[in-house]
Amino acid sequence: MRSRDPAVLLEAARRGDRGATGRLLSLVETGGAGGAATAALTVAASASVRRVVGLTGAPGAGKSTLADRLIGCARAEGTVGVVAVDPSSPFTGGAILGDRVRMQDHSDDPGVFIRSMATRGHLGGLSLAVPQAVRVLAAVGMDTVLIETVGVGQVEIEVAGAADTTVVVVNPGWGDDVQATKAGLLEIADVLVVNKADRPGAAAARRDLEAMLDAAAASVPALADWRPPVVLTSAADGTGVDELWAAVVEHGTRLAEHGQLARRRSDRLLEELRRTVVQRLAADLPRLAGDERYERVAAEVVAHRLDPQLAAEELVAGIGGR
Amino acid sequence: MRSRDPAVLLEAARRGDRGATGRLLSLVETGGAGGAATAALTVAASASVRRVVGLTGAPGAGKSTLADRLIGCARAEGTVGVVAVDPSSPFTGGAILGDRVRMQDHSDDPGVFIRSMATRGHLGGLSLAVPQAVRVLAAVGMDTVLIETVGVGQVEIEVAGAADTTVVVVNPGWGDDVQATKAGLLEIADVLVVNKADRPGAAAARRDLEAMLDAAAASVPALADWRPPVVLTSAADGTGVDELWAAVVEHGTRLAEHGQLARRRSDRLLEELRRTVVQRLAADLPRLAGDERYERVAAEVVAHRLDPQLAAEELVAGIGGR
Repeated sequence: MRSRDPAVLLEAARRGDRGATGRLLSLVETGGAGGAATAALTVAASASVRRVVGLTGAPGAGKSTLADRLIGCARAEGTVGVVAVDPSSPFTGGAILGDRVRMQDHSDDPGVFIRSMATRGHLGGLSLAVPQAVRVLAAVGMDTVLIETVGVGQVEIEVAGAADTTVVVVNPGWGDDVQATKAGLLEIADVLVVNKADRPGAAAARRDLEAMLDAAAASVPALADWRPPVVLTSAADGTGVDELWAAVVEHGTRLAEHGQLARRRSDRLLEELRRTVVQRLAADLPRLAGDERYERVAAEVVAHRLDPQLAAEELVAGIGGR
Repeated sequence: MRSRDPAVLLEAARRGDRGATGRLLSLVETGGAGGAATAALTVAASASVRRVVGLTGAPGAGKSTLADRLIGCARAEGTVGVVAVDPSSPFTGGAILGDRVRMQDHSDDPGVFIRSMATRGHLGGLSLAVPQAVRVLAAVGMDTVLIETVGVGQVEIEVAGAADTTVVVVNPGWGDDVQATKAGLLEIADVLVVNKADRPGAAAARRDLEAMLDAAAASVPALADWRPPVVLTSAADGTGVDELWAAVVEHGTRLAEHGQLARRRSDRLLEELRRTVVQRLAADLPRLAGDERYERVAAEVVAHRLDPQLAAEELVAGIGGR
């Protein structure tokens, strides 16, 4: 069955045709008419998926091994789709894809579907493609969707924001000199994990995180509703993984109880809408502002007769509702 | 002299009034009418500044100490302005600012002006504020401007892109598991530094970088014109710093010889223009698309009757040149 009709593919995928699921994901990754049709068919799934879990943290923190364990936990309560985000570069291609091999433990399990996604060179690409891929996986019948991101940059943080519950992974001994990174990760964390906790410094890392949470409690109102638990794990031998999964489930339950789950999902859709509109406007900028006008203003900027701010003002003044 | 008139401030700053320089930088950081006036007054400086050097790399790589050394090198040929970018978070405030203390060795030198800039919570904020700050520092008479960024995310890479010559700092023993980070850094590097080269693994790190450059040579045409040299330094005791500065100067000379310097600077201005327009459009989205229309479409999205892509298409169709 090699159809490229999204409706036909979706029906086949729901019956368990994994190739069809893969082709639907390719459609939303590629965009265009097929992507748009797939998006339209799967939009309702963002409400029906049971659990969307994000897993993020610095490179080398052991996220793939931990993801592998969490797939096992989630599998006990249903099917699992995984989006493994590869911030690989045009410079090296997909150097990181080798890491994914570890997750292939589940590759023979028809209840698990794993997909790697790479950045496509343009900013905003992944943060728009990932939520669509999550909806596809939900629409084909995955009960839990796990989003794994490598790295701690802004893009990864945006991607992790596509989850209901975000798990942030650190290791013992992450230095005092990464305060900024820590802060960025703490902001998005619903559950904190010190992985490789068999190494020296695990208890200190936990104290450190708890101290940061204490310090933040006064200024971050959300911490009064939910304080991210700090869980120690050794993904390699499975220590602490059950406790981690229990924390994820507990967070999901709390969200649902307080009506926050629906609100989080609505907010994510609105943010996705905003980003999509901005991306389209950015792609079409010279035409929107009038090609000739844009060229004329750009020439003034390059000649240093006009600064980019004033130039932007002039161009934006030429764009409006119609 | 507490004027807030940018023209008056600029004249005072050129005469050596450091407070006036600080206030001009605050104006471009804050934006608004004062920022716009400052931008207009300083736009020509992007052509006249002798050297804009970016310094970036992972947290803890010793960039501040290295920046301190490079200030000394640049000082031998003229005045030096420094923009130290702090990707600090609203969660912790400016936790990293303490690091800057090391650069205060130069705080009594009237030929050196150091400014820390923090992210202001919105994406694109820094990548727009930094080039403006560079122009202010150039306009008040700084011969060299050094941009130091902490971190290796997309925002930092964009910020580093505001430089003529970008120096990327790594340490011995940066793991094999950070291929993606490496690739991103290699893409922007004009000069590569293995700092803390007194530690074990420095030679291996250099071989590693050279091997990556070899591998990239076939597919990256720019490497035929300029292959980033790999320099070993120990910023703490100054070892290798002269060699590093020589590489920075050599890169600048090569750029100027091939007419690439003017082209790089023009390209940066055009990219800055594009980003500024996109940022303004993004800030004004609902009004541009028509407030009522935007609300109606957003409500359809939240109700899962319309996916964000189709919704964006509908909204973008309502925006155009006039």
